[in-house]
Amino acid sequence: MIDPLSRWAQYGEKPDYAGLLTFAGQPYTEDPAELAGVDVAVIGAPTDDLVSDRPGTRFGPRAIRAASCPPGPHLEAGIDAFSVLRVVDYGDAPVLPADAARSAEAIERTVGEALAAGAIPVVLGGDHSIAEADVRACAAVHGPLGLVHFDTHTDTGREVFGVPRSHGTPMYRLVEDGHVDGSRYVQIGLRGYWPGDDEFGWQREHGITSLFMHEIRDRGIASIVDRAVEVLGDGPTFLTVDVDVLDPAFAPGTGTPEPGGMTPADLLWACRTLAHRLRLVGMDVVEVIPTGVGSADVTALVAERIVRETLTGIAQRRRDG
Amino acid sequence: MIDPLSRWAQYGEKPDYAGLLTFAGQPYTEDPAELAGVDVAVIGAPTDDLVSDRPGTRFGPRAIRAASCPPGPHLEAGIDAFSVLRVVDYGDAPVLPADAARSAEAIERTVGEALAAGAIPVVLGGDHSIAEADVRACAAVHGPLGLVHFDTHTDTGREVFGVPRSHGTPMYRLVEDGHVDGSRYVQIGLRGYWPGDDEFGWQREHGITSLFMHEIRDRGIASIVDRAVEVLGDGPTFLTVDVDVLDPAFAPGTGTPEPGGMTPADLLWACRTLAHRLRLVGMDVVEVIPTGVGSADVTALVAERIVRETLTGIAQRRRDG
Amino acid sequence: MIDPLSRWAQYGEKPDYAGLLTFAGQPYTEDPAELAGVDVAVIGAPTDDLVSDRPGTRFGPRAIRAASCPPGPHLEAGIDAFSVLRVVDYGDAPVLPADAARSAEAIERTVGEALAAGAIPVVLGGDHSIAEADVRACAAVHGPLGLVHFDTHTDTGREVFGVPRSHGTPMYRLVEDGHVDGSRYVQIGLRGYWPGDDEFGWQREHGITSLFMHEIRDRGIASIVDRAVEVLGDGPTFLTVDVDVLDPAFAPGTGTPEPGGMTPADLLWACRTLAHRLRLVGMDVVEVIPTGVGSADVTALVAERIVRETLTGIAQRRRDG
Amino acid sequence: MIDPLSRWAQYGEKPDYAGLLTFAGQPYTEDPAELAGVDVAVIGAPTDDLVSDRPGTRFGPRAIRAASCPPGPHLEAGIDAFSVLRVVDYGDAPVLPADAARSAEAIERTVGEALAAGAIPVVLGGDHSIAEADVRACAAVHGPLGLVHFDTHTDTGREVFGVPRSHGTPMYRLVEDGHVDGSRYVQIGLRGYWPGDDEFGWQREHGITSLFMHEIRDRGIASIVDRAVEVLGDGPTFLTVDVDVLDPAFAPGTGTPEPGGMTPADLLWACRTLAHRLRLVGMDVVEVIPTGVGSADVTALVAERIVRETLTGIAQRRRDG
Amino acid sequence: MIDPLSRWAQYGEKPDYAGLLTFAGQPYTEDPAELAGVDVAVIGAPTDDLVSDRPGTRFGPRAIRAASCPPGPHLEAGIDAFSVLRVVDYGDAPVLPADAARSAEAIERTVGEALAAGAIPVVLGGDHSIAEADVRACAAVHGPLGLVHFDTHTDTGREVFGVPRSHGTPMYRLVEDGHVDGSRYVQIGLRGYWPGDDEFGWQREHGITSLFMHEIRDRGIASIVDRAVEVLGDGPTFLTVDVDVLDPAFAPGTGTPEPGGMTPADLLWACRTLAHRLRLVGMDVVEVIPTGVGSADVTALVAERIVRETLTGIAQRRRDG
Amino acid sequence: MIDPLSRWAQYGEKPDYAGLLTFAGQPYTEDPAELAGVDVAVIGAPTDDLVSDRPGTRFGPRAIRAASCPPGPHLEAGIDAFSVLRVVDYGDAPVLPADAARSAEAIERTVGEALAAGAIPVVLGGDHSIAEADVRACAAVHGPLGLVHFDTHTDTGREVFGVPRSHGTPMYRLVEDGHVDGSRYVQIGLRGYWPGDDEFGWQREHGITSLFMHEIRDRGIASIVDRAVEVLGDGPTFLTVDVDVLDPAFAPGTGTPEPGGMTPADLLWACRTLAHRLRLVGMDVVEVIPTGVGSADVTALVAERIVRETLTGIAQRRRDG
Repeated sequence: MIDPLSRWAQYGEKPDYAGLLTFAGQPYTEDPAELAGVDVAVIGAPTDDLVSDRPGTRFGPRAIRAASCPPGPHLEAGIDAFSVLRVVDYGDAPVLPADAARSAEAIERTVGEALAAGAIPVVLGGDHSIAEADVRACAAVHGPLGLVHFDTHTDTGREVFGVPRSHGTPMYRLVEDGHVDGSRYVQIGLRGYWPGDDEFGWQREHGITSLFMHEIRDRGIASIVDRAVEVLGDGPTFLTVDVDVLDPAFAPGTGTPEPGGMTPADLLWACRTLAHRLRLVGMDVVEVIPTGVGSADVTALVAERIVRETLTGIAQRRRDG
Repeated sequence: MIDPLSRWAQYGEKPDYAGLLTFAGQPYTEDPAELAGVDVAVIGAPTDDLVSDRPGTRFGPRAIRAASCPPGPHLEAGIDAFSVLRVVDYGDAPVLPADAARSAEAIERTVGEALAAGAIPVVLGGDHSIAEADVRACAAVHGPLGLVHFDTHTDTGREVFGVPRSHGTPMYRLVEDGHVDGSRYVQIGLRGYWPGDDEFGWQREHGITSLFMHEIRDRGIASIVDRAVEVLGDGPTFLTVDVDVLDPAFAPGTGTPEPGGMTPADLLWACRTLAHRLRLVGMDVVEVIPTGVGSADVTALVAERIVRETLTGIAQRRRDG
Repeated sequence: MIDPLSRWAQYGEKPDYAGLLTFAGQPYTEDPAELAGVDVAVIGAPTDDLVSDRPGTRFGPRAIRAASCPPGPHLEAGIDAFSVLRVVDYGDAPVLPADAARSAEAIERTVGEALAAGAIPVVLGGDHSIAEADVRACAAVHGPLGLVHFDTHTDTGREVFGVPRSHGTPMYRLVEDGHVDGSRYVQIGLRGYWPGDDEFGWQREHGITSLFMHEIRDRGIASIVDRAVEVLGDGPTFLTVDVDVLDPAFAPGTGTPEPGGMTPADLLWACRTLAHRLRLVGMDVVEVIPTGVGSADVTALVAERIVRETLTGIAQRRRDG
Repeated sequence: MIDPLSRWAQYGEKPDYAGLLTFAGQPYTEDPAELAGVDVAVIGAPTDDLVSDRPGTRFGPRAIRAASCPPGPHLEAGIDAFSVLRVVDYGDAPVLPADAARSAEAIERTVGEALAAGAIPVVLGGDHSIAEADVRACAAVHGPLGLVHFDTHTDTGREVFGVPRSHGTPMYRLVEDGHVDGSRYVQIGLRGYWPGDDEFGWQREHGITSLFMHEIRDRGIASIVDRAVEVLGDGPTFLTVDVDVLDPAFAPGTGTPEPGGMTPADLLWACRTLAHRLRLVGMDVVEVIPTGVGSADVTALVAERIVRETLTGIAQRRRDG
Repeated sequence: MIDPLSRWAQYGEKPDYAGLLTFAGQPYTEDPAELAGVDVAVIGAPTDDLVSDRPGTRFGPRAIRAASCPPGPHLEAGIDAFSVLRVVDYGDAPVLPADAARSAEAIERTVGEALAAGAIPVVLGGDHSIAEADVRACAAVHGPLGLVHFDTHTDTGREVFGVPRSHGTPMYRLVEDGHVDGSRYVQIGLRGYWPGDDEFGWQREHGITSLFMHEIRDRGIASIVDRAVEVLGDGPTFLTVDVDVLDPAFAPGTGTPEPGGMTPADLLWACRTLAHRLRLVGMDVVEVIPTGVGSADVTALVAERIVRETLTGIAQRRRDG
Repeated sequence: MIDPLSRWAQYGEKPDYAGLLTFAGQPYTEDPAELAGVDVAVIGAPTDDLVSDRPGTRFGPRAIRAASCPPGPHLEAGIDAFSVLRVVDYGDAPVLPADAARSAEAIERTVGEALAAGAIPVVLGGDHSIAEADVRACAAVHGPLGLVHFDTHTDTGREVFGVPRSHGTPMYRLVEDGHVDGSRYVQIGLRGYWPGDDEFGWQREHGITSLFMHEIRDRGIASIVDRAVEVLGDGPTFLTVDVDVLDPAFAPGTGTPEPGGMTPADLLWACRTLAHRLRLVGMDVVEVIPTGVGSADVTALVAERIVRETLTGIAQRRRDG
């Protein structure tokens, strides 16, 4: 394990732009044995083979890492996640370009290694098709999962353009395969023009809860979060965040943006609160297409903060015992 | 008429980035005879000769088309505009660079062809000077019109820098020429530092209703929309949307941006609701300066959605009978 | 003194993109003698030697000037600041690259010249380290100052990476040196992960008021502004605005952006209102990293409007007597 | 068939930014019956599923069309290709995202339609994997082909990352499958660090001629072109141009750029001269990743000119009889 | 007159990014009386009303100034132009948006003021239509002029899209009106697909010399320069440089780029040499569309150097007596 | 030591965009003990505190790493440097923002660790001021060094803007301090307008050889390289490459670009050839300001290849014995 902070030990922090590129400057290892005692393992899943429109999410994991700021106390929550949780960067899953099936296996296997060591996996996408792999890996350990899913789109297509494995289909497959329990699956932020009656019919059959963007607008985010907590209860839950749930102004670097979306203020608060109130066993943040350098890439930046707020909530929950 | 979907007929949709570039992938024709039975004709007006600051709106129409997503049911309204309305892309008006007068004639003539066929014209700008041409064409058919005008600026200058025909003057000319009825003219979103007492004095003389950005902030968009409906009543009405009414974060690609503007959540809802409650006979969306590719251009993207929400409202109204 | 408007005198305004580059097209001088009778002197401080992450603010002053729109009446406030106040562009302080100490002296001296002439200095940064120089210059004339400080970060570090003079430390030094009165120092918009207990402990010792971003979210900006006015009272006050207080969507061009920030609607209103209600003796706007041309640079644009709203508030106060 | 020029008939040309988006403003059809009498059919192949590094070429065909300038006489060659050849834009092949196999079929079928009508297909990529489909379609009509291949890379991998179908393998498959005659296959512009001994050994076995970038540097482009003509002789020949053969300064928008490449002056001249001296039965230009609007996208622009120079050479050959 | 260097007097130079924005940091005046004794007056002409494709050159003059580096000795020529010549920045001509005729008058008048004072005007465009105004002003003083014209296009159209006044027509009008002597008019760098037989026929009638890009390629720039000097002789000569004569890699920010163009090495040398060997009475550099900040805008940067090399040549000539 | 290839072991290479970010995907360590047996240690020096114009080079080292392609045989040289040399990425020197002196110490110390282990240091800047630290470290081991210095500027200022430590002064200090032997110091590519007589006088006194850009243009790069080899002979030599020696088209991401520069074809060949023919004991490549992602950043890309060509030359020399 390499700790990027070592060379800057006397200052207690290092500049974000210098030193080994890891998530939030945390220690790095690719050795499963070194995961012992680790609370959270951050894993990159740099894929975009299965997107339906603009590609580029393969560059997401590095960009999210590069947008990190140093650890420190969350000014609203009053807790520094990194002082409560032992977080490591477990590197990228060994994905392959133009081979989505082997990439999925690689992601599932790498996430599985983290889980085997008792760590909560936090996966940096990549396109949303990675959810099939990472949620499956978590369900293999924890059984059928609850799912909190922030997104513009339901991603419950049976197929997209006749293709069964797509970034628009993972949730359909996870529910059908029993890895996600439809009655404990909450979608938040839906808007736009997809999907249609078929998919929503299937969703109703499986008891899936859809909370639309216009409900956030009308009822406020706190009410929506309460509803999600009510549905999800105490069981093991996975959090998946597609950055396109945000309005494109806040996350322009994504492949299927839809105007009229959430604000970071709402989304970040919701992630932290849900992590505090639910029993999260894993998370991913997906669909970041980087275009800039370091924190100049506002989409990667907000994705980094989505993770960090979630870690803060996990730390709050742990502190609360 | 060419239907870009034909080659993808077996999938029911085509990728946004492939096939003939038309609005929302709708059929394309330049033949007025083929407009028979068409409900909505989308027309490009790629001009920017008359702007006062940053140019580039001549690239707007193509960019708005390229930011389209496929048709589908509006997740809040529960209706797919394209299954209710027959929409065609009628191509661009044959504008000329550096000849604003002939461009205006070309726009007026092309919009007139759509009107003659009984279609509602939806014009993609271009700078706001096109409103003089497209509103005039509508007024020639429907008589003096009501006007709903989303904008930072009133565009009611007698002249800008001594120039009588400018993107800052169309509304003055339309009212003076009797094509717009001042008592049925509502401006929404005004802010910034223009115009001055003279122009507002003239506006008062003509009974024009100005709803400022700070009123949206203080009273909420629903109240503003109600007031607009009250003023406009049942008469024929034109909707003109300058994307600079949005805050620059949401529409950075525009020539005279002004911080402190509307959110897409409000604007999109307002366009749909107004289209539902008013009798629209035409619309335009203007002042988009593209800088990116496909949906990566957030300004073109939100402009496309402004049109689509309006079409959704028109479809709702038609469904309601 | 050169008035950029002269060549366009017959039109009463000039295009923003043409003529001598000055703030809002106002007259330009570098001669202290010509400051007699001037109400506001705009001064550039193009520095970035002391930043901790992304540099580039040395290009800020020119970009803010280039994002200007012409003077005119503020549509909400109903007053044209430039018709009430005599504003000149006093040029840039003669800073030097790679010599932060001499740059600070140059800024302090140049601001001092404006103050000596009775003008209110408005300083365009530059990184936030310039606040040490410009506030000190004001305090030399007016005595210990109240400070309204919009920012994500407190900038009250004793040191950053072991460096005592940084864009993260000016407020510590100003309070310690007695130029800012801690009991009349209000921070607005704090969020993120910095600083820690030490710094907040020091802040409490000095009676500094911290108003966090989550308080703006929960209580509304009007309440926050009221609280600031209450703390600051009637004494001489300096306004310092770090554009990173805005959400990165609204100010992407800044070095340490933090998602979940203020909207321009709130910030611009707050600056104007505070300028109206408080006795401002100086202001600065800092941390703009330009990337675009003219008003296409949305960060420079909003920074320009931050100044203009403040001038509007000052003009309102002066009008009120 | 729709002729975008019709609406501008009185001017003899239309602005590049206006009207239906087709290659060089040429007529558009998707109807094979309308290809009768057509000399050249331009076909888009918007794919990037099989790339090994940066994706985005799916946006290539539209960008190449949008970078067109109007037809006119080539100032060096003294001939207007469009007055000699009847060129139509035959639209895009109905490719699908995330389904490379069906996309390849679609490309091969669409190119086959053009060939069946007697037209020379000119295919706008897309990534280089499309060459397998479009060359195969040509070989089905003309028998085993000669191949002139401008590229940094040989694209003769058996597999890339264990994947047999990739943008790094089409030439291997075409030769192995007998669609390209190794003894009439000339690669021009090779440089960098790929492939290795295995691939070059295989190339030698098949008699493939490799002309490296350093040979262009040392011997001049005219000598290289002479050598290619010598190898290719009079048989049917396909021209495939990967824009990464150019130095990245001239074609920054490509997925695997390699510094030290060709200049457009050399490449454009070579394409025209080869088209004049060889019997071309088809061509493609590939690996364009657009990032800008219209001719502001320099990579799309040079790709458009690569096609146009080739058409000029074909026209010269036809004129010469 | 204001000298931006004054505040940095003790260092002998100022940072490029600081201080009043003028060409090369030279003194600024708008007062004709202060032009007495001035050798060269730099004048901005920020227009783009008459372009046929991509606009944006109205931002050119400021960008060219902002790309300046400090004066100093030319390392090849061994002379510092600014120590030989007294250069001032005479500001921008008072152009108006959307009023090309009045803008042309303003340019002609402002250039005339410089000429009346005995200064050589150096005009920073703006689109190429400004040449009609600035050359006319020079011809009014010096009589019919020789013209050295670097460009991809001849700009000798009678009209473009039916418009007689365009950036594609100034040279036609200047020759027809007798301001340029066709027998002393040399075009250098022509390529691409415009104009056609009509225009070249007209050119032959007027004895205009066209030196094509392929001649530079085949004969070398030195031979081309020799030929130009031979044609132009000792008479008064104007130099006009359209940056699109460069390959788009070197000048991407221009409205009608054409691949296969000149290198800066050739163009800069040629400008300096021509200025040394000919009797220049004025120059302009046109068609710069800025997109970046300071020297990061490579097109503005090379335009600045085109001016500076020309000034160096003028200084060499003056030194030689 | 962590080998990023491990997870992709079965494919023999990994995608450039995936896995731990190291130079060319080589193993990573921060432990000096692990440098035993290493031939080349790559070290990042992410600084820009001492630049005189555009900053941003602190992001250079990561960008250069991210622009890597996999190892492989050099197609001209016929050798794979990474199979001859054992290369490791030794991480970044622990630099600090806003503390140039401590950053220089950190660089010198880190480079010294590599040297102590017998490895050749290859330093990725950062601005050119790092040369003072890295050359000094090499001279401490090898005695006064020869220096091959590709650059637009001599960087031999005594001071820049009165500042003695700047990116414009390292060579002056290295020669004055005896770390570089003036008689074995060759500058290649000088052009533009700096420095002046004083600096060149000092250079002559120290026997420094200046080879100007115009000499490359007139004599060819091979002759220039021969001259450099002649001057440098067999002694220990350091290679320092400022990417601004390239024309800005090829390296737009740099702080003080100067048109009319070298081509990558010449520069890459020269670096390889010099590394083959000289006894290099260290190198750096500096002044890269990244703006893009991965190989889309053409400046970082060419910087990566500058290193790689140099490694190829070192490998050739080693193979030759």
